[in-house]
Amino acid sequence: MLDIRGLNEACGVFGVWGHKDAAEMAYFGLHALQHRGQDGAGMVVKNGDRLIRHRGSGLAADAFPQKTLDELKGTAAIGHVRYVMSGVHSQDGYQPRLFHFQKSSLAIGHNGSLVNSHELRHALESEGSIFQTSADSETLAHLIRKSSEPLLLDKLKASLKKIQGSYTFVLLTQKKLMAARDPQGIRPLVLGKLGETYMVASETCAFDTLGATYIRDVAPGEIVIIDDDGPRSDFIASDPGLRVCSMEFVYFARPDSNIDGINVHTSRKNAGRILAKEAPTPADVVVPSPDSGISAAIGYAEASGIPYEIGIIKNRYAKRTFIEPSQELRELGVKLKLSAVRAIVEGKSVVLVEDSIVRGTTSKHIVALLKEAGAKEVHMKVASPLLAHTCCYGVDLHTTKELIAYNRTTKDICRAIGADSLSYISEAGLVEAIGIPCSKGGGLCMACFNGDYPAGGGN
Amino acid sequence: MLDIRGLNEACGVFGVWGHKDAAEMAYFGLHALQHRGQDGAGMVVKNGDRLIRHRGSGLAADAFPQKTLDELKGTAAIGHVRYVMSGVHSQDGYQPRLFHFQKSSLAIGHNGSLVNSHELRHALESEGSIFQTSADSETLAHLIRKSSEPLLLDKLKASLKKIQGSYTFVLLTQKKLMAARDPQGIRPLVLGKLGETYMVASETCAFDTLGATYIRDVAPGEIVIIDDDGPRSDFIASDPGLRVCSMEFVYFARPDSNIDGINVHTSRKNAGRILAKEAPTPADVVVPSPDSGISAAIGYAEASGIPYEIGIIKNRYAKRTFIEPSQELRELGVKLKLSAVRAIVEGKSVVLVEDSIVRGTTSKHIVALLKEAGAKEVHMKVASPLLAHTCCYGVDLHTTKELIAYNRTTKDICRAIGADSLSYISEAGLVEAIGIPCSKGGGLCMACFNGDYPAGGGN
Amino acid sequence: MLDIRGLNEACGVFGVWGHKDAAEMAYFGLHALQHRGQDGAGMVVKNGDRLIRHRGSGLAADAFPQKTLDELKGTAAIGHVRYVMSGVHSQDGYQPRLFHFQKSSLAIGHNGSLVNSHELRHALESEGSIFQTSADSETLAHLIRKSSEPLLLDKLKASLKKIQGSYTFVLLTQKKLMAARDPQGIRPLVLGKLGETYMVASETCAFDTLGATYIRDVAPGEIVIIDDDGPRSDFIASDPGLRVCSMEFVYFARPDSNIDGINVHTSRKNAGRILAKEAPTPADVVVPSPDSGISAAIGYAEASGIPYEIGIIKNRYAKRTFIEPSQELRELGVKLKLSAVRAIVEGKSVVLVEDSIVRGTTSKHIVALLKEAGAKEVHMKVASPLLAHTCCYGVDLHTTKELIAYNRTTKDICRAIGADSLSYISEAGLVEAIGIPCSKGGGLCMACFNGDYPAGGGN
Amino acid sequence: MLDIRGLNEACGVFGVWGHKDAAEMAYFGLHALQHRGQDGAGMVVKNGDRLIRHRGSGLAADAFPQKTLDELKGTAAIGHVRYVMSGVHSQDGYQPRLFHFQKSSLAIGHNGSLVNSHELRHALESEGSIFQTSADSETLAHLIRKSSEPLLLDKLKASLKKIQGSYTFVLLTQKKLMAARDPQGIRPLVLGKLGETYMVASETCAFDTLGATYIRDVAPGEIVIIDDDGPRSDFIASDPGLRVCSMEFVYFARPDSNIDGINVHTSRKNAGRILAKEAPTPADVVVPSPDSGISAAIGYAEASGIPYEIGIIKNRYAKRTFIEPSQELRELGVKLKLSAVRAIVEGKSVVLVEDSIVRGTTSKHIVALLKEAGAKEVHMKVASPLLAHTCCYGVDLHTTKELIAYNRTTKDICRAIGADSLSYISEAGLVEAIGIPCSKGGGLCMACFNGDYPAGGGN
Repeated sequence: MLDIRGLNEACGVFGVWGHKDAAEMAYFGLHALQHRGQDGAGMVVKNGDRLIRHRGSGLAADAFPQKTLDELKGTAAIGHVRYVMSGVHSQDGYQPRLFHFQKSSLAIGHNGSLVNSHELRHALESEGSIFQTSADSETLAHLIRKSSEPLLLDKLKASLKKIQGSYTFVLLTQKKLMAARDPQGIRPLVLGKLGETYMVASETCAFDTLGATYIRDVAPGEIVIIDDDGPRSDFIASDPGLRVCSMEFVYFARPDSNIDGINVHTSRKNAGRILAKEAPTPADVVVPSPDSGISAAIGYAEASGIPYEIGIIKNRYAKRTFIEPSQELRELGVKLKLSAVRAIVEGKSVVLVEDSIVRGTTSKHIVALLKEAGAKEVHMKVASPLLAHTCCYGVDLHTTKELIAYNRTTKDICRAIGADSLSYISEAGLVEAIGIPCSKGGGLCMACFNGDYPAGGGN
Repeated sequence: MLDIRGLNEACGVFGVWGHKDAAEMAYFGLHALQHRGQDGAGMVVKNGDRLIRHRGSGLAADAFPQKTLDELKGTAAIGHVRYVMSGVHSQDGYQPRLFHFQKSSLAIGHNGSLVNSHELRHALESEGSIFQTSADSETLAHLIRKSSEPLLLDKLKASLKKIQGSYTFVLLTQKKLMAARDPQGIRPLVLGKLGETYMVASETCAFDTLGATYIRDVAPGEIVIIDDDGPRSDFIASDPGLRVCSMEFVYFARPDSNIDGINVHTSRKNAGRILAKEAPTPADVVVPSPDSGISAAIGYAEASGIPYEIGIIKNRYAKRTFIEPSQELRELGVKLKLSAVRAIVEGKSVVLVEDSIVRGTTSKHIVALLKEAGAKEVHMKVASPLLAHTCCYGVDLHTTKELIAYNRTTKDICRAIGADSLSYISEAGLVEAIGIPCSKGGGLCMACFNGDYPAGGGN
Repeated sequence: MLDIRGLNEACGVFGVWGHKDAAEMAYFGLHALQHRGQDGAGMVVKNGDRLIRHRGSGLAADAFPQKTLDELKGTAAIGHVRYVMSGVHSQDGYQPRLFHFQKSSLAIGHNGSLVNSHELRHALESEGSIFQTSADSETLAHLIRKSSEPLLLDKLKASLKKIQGSYTFVLLTQKKLMAARDPQGIRPLVLGKLGETYMVASETCAFDTLGATYIRDVAPGEIVIIDDDGPRSDFIASDPGLRVCSMEFVYFARPDSNIDGINVHTSRKNAGRILAKEAPTPADVVVPSPDSGISAAIGYAEASGIPYEIGIIKNRYAKRTFIEPSQELRELGVKLKLSAVRAIVEGKSVVLVEDSIVRGTTSKHIVALLKEAGAKEVHMKVASPLLAHTCCYGVDLHTTKELIAYNRTTKDICRAIGADSLSYISEAGLVEAIGIPCSKGGGLCMACFNGDYPAGGGN
Repeated sequence: MLDIRGLNEACGVFGVWGHKDAAEMAYFGLHALQHRGQDGAGMVVKNGDRLIRHRGSGLAADAFPQKTLDELKGTAAIGHVRYVMSGVHSQDGYQPRLFHFQKSSLAIGHNGSLVNSHELRHALESEGSIFQTSADSETLAHLIRKSSEPLLLDKLKASLKKIQGSYTFVLLTQKKLMAARDPQGIRPLVLGKLGETYMVASETCAFDTLGATYIRDVAPGEIVIIDDDGPRSDFIASDPGLRVCSMEFVYFARPDSNIDGINVHTSRKNAGRILAKEAPTPADVVVPSPDSGISAAIGYAEASGIPYEIGIIKNRYAKRTFIEPSQELRELGVKLKLSAVRAIVEGKSVVLVEDSIVRGTTSKHIVALLKEAGAKEVHMKVASPLLAHTCCYGVDLHTTKELIAYNRTTKDICRAIGADSLSYISEAGLVEAIGIPCSKGGGLCMACFNGDYPAGGGN
């Protein structure tokens, strides 16, 4: 059964150096980052002078049975959870990828998306490179291989300077772990510590799971190098100012994670509060769209004084059933995933809070459920601005035509989803809600809302 | 990975008569009732004059692959989801059970627990009965078989009169579907309709999933008989007054279900409100224990005016990992299932709302998580009274020694779970919160709270 | 993919008493008897005063993962491998079955088929018995329960005296293991020993697998009782003379097993020799139908002086593919299971040796393969007589209409399978080939060949 | 459970061009070649201008469920079954491998082993190539990519001229299928036809399965190019004379396959006959080691006049059990895979025929089984010469130390395996038995027997 939600992040990364149970730590790190990708998981572990790789489909728990984990002994590791994007070669295998040079090996994991990969590949192929996948990590490997710099770190820096787009790369060799964040810091990356063991991860929730301490966010354009002497830093570019992906706060990241100093749940709740002020509606109850609208709905209820209620229930076993209702039952309206709570919504005017509207399918479905259960009115409040542009930085949003906002006014969308009213938070409101402390203006990438692509590429 | 929560209901039942896709309807009905038992699922389907059975372990989705469901063609069905209780023969197979008499067959599914089954079995064995399991449905089958009444309905009535304890039985023959609720109505049972198709279920959420309409709750002591002429009723006993299980409202049932006319989420939220009045504490945030404390926490926050916050996050993939952290990582505190949100709770005085405390393991774990994340104070508020007695009516609570309340005062418990204060709602408060409209006093079984066992049995 | 062979035995039994690894021994015993049934496997183990049961579908290896076997600790066990017969309730679960009486438990496993079970059940039901399956072991349990004899052994004897048909029963209680063979000894049963541990099995190959020593065959009508004092015997009837199933020698049993003193491979080879004399044909090569015709083909080749060749190859991975060729490929003649060896058969006159012909499907297929590969002539020699009657003693052969011999002469059958000639061994020839040392004439049940049913029942 | 046999071939290849069900044909082709590798299977299918790849672990039946096969629509395909050799990176993934060049893609499957791959890789890496695996097909891809020839066929020829060792390569592009056999023809490759559809395969049994017609063996040093105009040929080298692997005849290939005009079963039977003359021993029975010694044993029996008997039975379910006997049972001698037939061998002088002895483990085990079952004498006859050298051409035989012949005389080996006598066929005998019609002497690679490596490399 497909998830009826349409927006997906492409991946999470984790790296650890200097622990006798490195593979096990990577496993639990990936487990905490699982919400960033459920299609496949992989790991490369450093065992003495060998790099050992294992990858598999599904969740980390599927890809790494106990037996496999037991064989992955080593003192450093990088790991990756993957979401297979539509419109991309799906048979390219899972990350990290492992490359063999004459005297060494190099493992690479990647979160993000390069916007000039086509040009780079064309040039590399002209010089004799063979590509076996369409993965950006393979492009980086070839750039490193072709670089004339003598040292690996310099090769990496030179290569990253040629790259445009969003990324966090984690790299592992027999000698060190390296982690790089793109110059705009579009994708998140954090540095942490457990005793003398250092680690990097896409989100802080991985550190909390492991009982590790958060040190700091990796800076935009920074490369962190970790070996037995601990971490040190180098930089690809002088800091052009943070432009971290706003959708991380709106939808992707786990509520308990902090990104660039901001707690995700808090930013969502703030958005709900601001929305209540920007778009007030008299109503009887505030109901979240489960589960992504919960934080914002709490904020909306608090700011508006309207009671917060659980008006829609998610069947927690729904993901496991592969049975499709027959045509006849489908027409009778069999509901496998969500149910409205009639006792809560019947005869009520309902404020429905959603984090964002992409294709509109879920919103339409939920509004219909509420109406069927007797809701008098359904006022949809969206805790992010109108989503009208594609993403070229790693979110699975490749064409504007798939968006419900394509060629539609807010009024059209409201009608399409069957709501009685529809309001979005303003761009300024979302910026205020997140509240990134950034001197150089903005601090956020809001390209999918306003078409301003900070790292090139675009529609 | 075992669920760290310790309280479990024993089963859910569903029955449908008069639909060409009866098995499929039963499947989706069981899917909606899945929270009542995840150890096994089964179904008996009436295909013309044959009763066909299929049972399997795990969720309904595991027990019924599409191919199996396709083979279970028929126009009536009863289904069962099962929780295997500790202390009970676990190899007894799943329900419904199917019995062959000389000229007919009889399928029986059961939710509840008989308190005089030992005596009944002893007597039946003395008369030559052979038991193949310890299941109560087998006891009922033998009673029916031995009954001297000429008609099946009379046999059933005579048999049920000999039985003490809690039950909902669903029975299927080639001619009809029957469903019985015990004279105190301890376990819930509802009657619904979709066009000309009638159905019974443990909870109304099964009807909502199927797009069916709720007709009414089956009355205490009532037997509903459904055949092609529609439903009719008979009674085991003159109504001694409803005593429905209060734990159904506190913990077992789905929030969107209504039981004996009361919405479950609403009763929980009411309990939170009343608790806020009975046990007020100045605090910065109200945090629910996920997911069972959410409804009550919303009520508590509303009534107290303290902000409701998501202070603890549940990893939704936790159930899938079978990897146990190594001893060393365990000591470092790897957290697979729950994480506290530091940004929310650090430096705060926290009201933690839980639906109930059984063994105290989870409560202790959550309090510790909050403290580690920097909570200044943790005040535990429990939306049900002190749980100090066992249950003999179908809840997996067989000895008081396993209860944290065993030989402990509230103060002792508070210390044991590491909280700064601990308050329970009063019995009267819970009765008010649920608000069962029952003329003959009480209306609830609260035996596990006060030791008053309405259908015999007891500690 | 269904096996294209159509004849199947219903089950194998094993029992062991007095070994600390009884479950493990039973597992390997069942593993050796796996050819007698691949649909399900089960075991009941005596652990102190408890009888623990586990059953599962598929091979013993599927039904008993290591974890399960580890939990089945005990010092005695009975086990069962099952073939689900067509025309029989398939959802009746696997054996052994376990019955609880007032003060004790009784586990029963069965190989064979009762011919008066309908009458017995009718009588038992009239006295109040409830049947939960159509299994013969359940009939025996009820007879035992209803018996007025004071001692279990006497109850068993009295019950077996009421039973007609073929059987080997293994029974386990907390106190002893019992094994019974029907008065005609239609189904085989042997007694063996490993140190002080005694065991019974359907075939001696189970003893060889375990490194145990064969003691003797259990006699027709004998009950062997094994407890800590070792084995002793009792008898149901004065010996009416052995009538062991001839198909055990022809097809069912493993070639390395000995039944009633006769090696199975040797009896088959003898049949091939006799067939060469009874039905000589000048030919270039003798080719066995794999694998069941191998022993007889060796005998035929030896006696005739014609070279023995491997003219047909079985793809040993064929059982694993679930892909069906598309219509077009099917017409092109994709061969998944068997291939003819062109280099061997092209331009040759081939003697094709088969153990028996049931429905004729396989024979027709093999003859066609040989012809396509260029065989000049194919002479089919069958090492058992014309199979023209049903079996009511446990072989899956319920109606004569499914037999290719139904209403056909040998000449008709020859034409139907496309062979150039067809010869069967004579009844006397098969009796001579097996050579059972039996004073009272015959010694064999040959009902499916001649319609003489030694234990009642029949067409 | 590990196979106790120690010698394994590395892979089988298949290619088909010009059929609307190309993937399905490749599937059944791989199914027929499954004996050449059971660790993984893969396929690349040409669908219009796209090359689609799927690979998976285990048998073809495991790697290609129906759903996958349905998605692999196309009109041409190459496929590969793989055996993962010890001592080789096992995580290198399965074949075929797929490479993307600027304007085209190239899929490569390989059977064999290059002896100068280390040198070639070193040179390629110096020129900037990145290797992602240790697979020989990746080496070929880089050679092709670096070649300065303008046309793909010329690039391929130039590349193959740089390669030393054994190979059959199948290559697929959007425009054509190419298949190459090494200049000595060490690994087999055949060309066949079904209507207008052409195909190549490692063995003719793949054609028989598909109902296709064998055309001819691909010549040593030949490249066959197949496109919509049918097949045509080109050559890497002027024919240096065939040196096909003798172990293909001795052990690897399926008995029904013909290699370079010789039927495999017939060559084995011939070896048995010659062995009977070279090493006669008076004995009572000739018994094959199952299943690999069967053909030779038939020949030995025929030539010696000693009766051929089935003295050892293989449990056909043995591969499915993962249960290991406990230490105690192991000491009692639990036999999971093979059993001796006591009735056949007891008191007899046995000639045991084996195809080859590698590590000697199986031979020792079988001799012991026969002796335990009462064999008076066991005379081991081996239908191939003393195996004393490694293979560098694709057989999993990397060090002489693992061979029982290492530093041992025939007499020592005889003692080590516990036989009463031991005889090997002579080299000349094996050459005569196979009878390759080759003008330039030999015709066979017998490097593992005599240390003469026709394509370089060696111990």
